[in-house]
Amino acid sequence: MREVYHEQLDRVSDDLVEMTHLVATAMQNATKSLLDADLHLAEAVIAGDILIDDVAAQVEADCFQVSARQQPVATDLRIVVAALRISASLERMGDLAAHVAKAARMRYPASAVPDELRPTFEEMGNVAYDVVTKTGLVISTKDVARAADVAHTDEDMDRLHRQMFRTVLAPTWSHGVEAAVDVTLLSRFYERFADHAVTIAKRVVYVATGEPYNLVDATAYSAGRLDRPAGTTSR
Amino acid sequence: MREVYHEQLDRVSDDLVEMTHLVATAMQNATKSLLDADLHLAEAVIAGDILIDDVAAQVEADCFQVSARQQPVATDLRIVVAALRISASLERMGDLAAHVAKAARMRYPASAVPDELRPTFEEMGNVAYDVVTKTGLVISTKDVARAADVAHTDEDMDRLHRQMFRTVLAPTWSHGVEAAVDVTLLSRFYERFADHAVTIAKRVVYVATGEPYNLVDATAYSAGRLDRPAGTTSR
Repeated sequence: MREVYHEQLDRVSDDLVEMTHLVATAMQNATKSLLDADLHLAEAVIAGDILIDDVAAQVEADCFQVSARQQPVATDLRIVVAALRISASLERMGDLAAHVAKAARMRYPASAVPDELRPTFEEMGNVAYDVVTKTGLVISTKDVARAADVAHTDEDMDRLHRQMFRTVLAPTWSHGVEAAVDVTLLSRFYERFADHAVTIAKRVVYVATGEPYNLVDATAYSAGRLDRPAGTTSR
Repeated sequence: MREVYHEQLDRVSDDLVEMTHLVATAMQNATKSLLDADLHLAEAVIAGDILIDDVAAQVEADCFQVSARQQPVATDLRIVVAALRISASLERMGDLAAHVAKAARMRYPASAVPDELRPTFEEMGNVAYDVVTKTGLVISTKDVARAADVAHTDEDMDRLHRQMFRTVLAPTWSHGVEAAVDVTLLSRFYERFADHAVTIAKRVVYVATGEPYNLVDATAYSAGRLDRPAGTTSR
């Protein structure tokens, strides 16, 4: 019985990793639809968001089933609750990818991104793909060291977000208010996307170590302040 | 023992209601600091966000304690998980209030909001206060009918958000790109704030009825289209 229970928890973890793949592809395609003004691809991302929501619903149902069938002890409960929160974050990341695709659709056949900001958004798309792919590895490996990598990738996104602001607010900006509003919101979607990845990584670390962990302060880990081996808890 | 357990769950509910009050006040003061360019008030909102985070941490600790002490059955588990999610939403609403205050601080001694948009943001502040206050009532009363009221208030916010866009994108906009970027992000914070309130209300309805509920389609409920008995699921 205990075995079946842990198999179910493993399936939940697999579903969360699957969600990271779906979300990574969604944001990759959303970015492509944005930069290429590709209406069909944008529509596909928007329509595909329901698949991500479906996996999230499956995770929620599985979590309740394992909890109801075999009442979890505190550690397992923490895993179940973390899974529900991670799933909620991934679902929201899917929404943000769909928001990007909707912006692409709204401005079609034009592109919502002026030429001078194309490299920035191209890089944002790559960083978004990276950050959620790395988050999937954190979920599947429970490797606390990899979580710091997610935080570093988020810093890249913050840098791009600031770069977008500098470009838009420079006296040389020649694309007017509407384009400025568009790229401000778009950039915010990418920034929030990466923030959610960090929240997920932190949640995994918390479950693995029983300790909240400031991911940005990577030296804390290498200096052994989080010195309990992964998998132990503070119970 | 069972009594103590339910008393603890009641305390969690009280803490969530307390969070709605803190968040309502935070957004009210953030709006005032924004419109009056009141630096001290902005700083107070930013510093005060930690109090909201503290109550959220208390809710989380209490939820784990009640779950570990008396292993919850499925319904109680649903309450515990809902409480954790509601607390996460309220914490995020506190962050959004702090974001508004930070925008006020960034533009001090000027105001981030041009005169012609003052009435819009004043109304957004009022609607934000209303929506979270109504959400508090939904949490404390578990009254499904009141949840629809939260959704209607969110529609008011969406209307104001669209109004902001119309003003900024009109040919008469004379405040330039920076002000446009500022009010776009600010308006987005208010809009997300109200969205979170709806998410919370939906979560309470789900716990109370066992059914997901489309709050906006209020007639669906009264017309009995949600005709499966409470506690069944769609799986």
